[in-house]
Amino acid sequence: MPISELHTRRKVEFADTDMGGIVHFSRFFVYMESAEHELLNAAGTAVHFEHEGKLLGWPRRSASCDYRSPARLDDVLDIHVRVARKGASSMTYAFTFTCGERLVARGELASVCCVLGDGRPRPVPIPAFLAVQLAEHADPGEEAGDDPR
Amino acid sequence: MPISELHTRRKVEFADTDMGGIVHFSRFFVYMESAEHELLNAAGTAVHFEHEGKLLGWPRRSASCDYRSPARLDDVLDIHVRVARKGASSMTYAFTFTCGERLVARGELASVCCVLGDGRPRPVPIPAFLAVQLAEHADPGEEAGDDPR
Amino acid sequence: MPISELHTRRKVEFADTDMGGIVHFSRFFVYMESAEHELLNAAGTAVHFEHEGKLLGWPRRSASCDYRSPARLDDVLDIHVRVARKGASSMTYAFTFTCGERLVARGELASVCCVLGDGRPRPVPIPAFLAVQLAEHADPGEEAGDDPR
Amino acid sequence: MPISELHTRRKVEFADTDMGGIVHFSRFFVYMESAEHELLNAAGTAVHFEHEGKLLGWPRRSASCDYRSPARLDDVLDIHVRVARKGASSMTYAFTFTCGERLVARGELASVCCVLGDGRPRPVPIPAFLAVQLAEHADPGEEAGDDPR
Repeated sequence: MPISELHTRRKVEFADTDMGGIVHFSRFFVYMESAEHELLNAAGTAVHFEHEGKLLGWPRRSASCDYRSPARLDDVLDIHVRVARKGASSMTYAFTFTCGERLVARGELASVCCVLGDGRPRPVPIPAFLAVQLAEHADPGEEAGDDPR
Repeated sequence: MPISELHTRRKVEFADTDMGGIVHFSRFFVYMESAEHELLNAAGTAVHFEHEGKLLGWPRRSASCDYRSPARLDDVLDIHVRVARKGASSMTYAFTFTCGERLVARGELASVCCVLGDGRPRPVPIPAFLAVQLAEHADPGEEAGDDPR
Repeated sequence: MPISELHTRRKVEFADTDMGGIVHFSRFFVYMESAEHELLNAAGTAVHFEHEGKLLGWPRRSASCDYRSPARLDDVLDIHVRVARKGASSMTYAFTFTCGERLVARGELASVCCVLGDGRPRPVPIPAFLAVQLAEHADPGEEAGDDPR
Repeated sequence: MPISELHTRRKVEFADTDMGGIVHFSRFFVYMESAEHELLNAAGTAVHFEHEGKLLGWPRRSASCDYRSPARLDDVLDIHVRVARKGASSMTYAFTFTCGERLVARGELASVCCVLGDGRPRPVPIPAFLAVQLAEHADPGEEAGDDPR
């Protein structure tokens, strides 16, 4: 069955914090990435995978995050990730971080399906099996498009 | 003299890389932050500072980055940071990363001037001396506004 | 009931890896710290705690790790932590990392109970309740001592 | 000319700190690694290098650090690294971190020269040109040995 969203949870660790006493803002991008990889795993694939004899992967095209309230040591963050947009060769994932009822952050990652190797990653169309497996999330509040950027 | 931009440089370190052989995308946010702090230092202030008996700081409101080409171990990145927008209590910085002639990434950080303490950071107007010191960058391609987001 | 050891588990994340394709050696120290904090939590305390009106914590005195085999993305690491030595004001924890049958690494962290504040952390005796709660691990292959280093 | 030691300097960055207000202990290992790589560069080599058609590198065998006093944001750390011991296939580097007159930490990294590839890294003798280039530091207070561990 195609997958379009996933919920995961993680506890803030000491090394995630900074001298402001809160989670360093850059760590949210690591949190997002790990949730994205869980979604890929749930879809039966992985961040690096063989396809027709080539090693494919998902280098980043863009990443963003809006911070609404701080996360602190031992906070248990609920992370919701969903497939926000699918392009010919790109995927955009949207993330929501909550701690109990409190909204902590919202973020987005866009990745491009690429042939990996020693040189510069080269974009390729998302393999058909994967395009089926990763379903776009039906979300009335979002418009979809083909590689909108 | 007010400061509106700064150029700095850093060399990619081994611990910045990931198994894809390139700088992990989350590290660009650390690179941006350090360049932002250099700009604050050049303006005679710091990320945490005392003002009228209170500890002020700059928690993040948002962060974003567009990745154009990978950075690798020992690449020397030229980082240009400029004050993109000034709000009543927020600052937005824009960053460009190049490696020689090659564009590597463009990013943005928005921070809110806050009173720090044990509780949730509380936004306050940017102190006048600082608002003067950090000058908006005159950039024909960008519009300025008051806390546009 | 006093606690002297704990078993936990964590999956290697993409951001833990480096361009060598394996977990960066520095990340094992973060893994150790989080296991140590789990042990503290299981003992009914935390890494920062109030005691007789003071904020106490456990700054590091030393850390070490021996690496036996690499850990890679998605490896599930079994982490065993035990109280190796108890001193008047210090605790030493020993860690073993395995992946299935394979030994990955062995490490040690020594921490000193300190009063935290704005200045330099000041060592104090471990509060009695905690000294009881964190039991030394009975291990025929290790000798215990009072702050042996 | 053979090289046996090197001095470098780095400023503590915000992202290096934790909620204790000091540099996270795991970051010292990153500081050490970057100083080690500078030493390798000064010796005309690098952490990954081609030799007789093979890719060689230096996976870690062990790492340790003793912490003497905390390092804080904007502290400028003087880092001295020297070749402490040379084995047939291993190198051990010793590090001293000071901030002005204050001793901050002492550490050690041991690395093994290995053929890298998809499988487990395989130890090989240090190539002769490198064994000459990286000279053991003459230090009356240290004994040298052949892979003493």
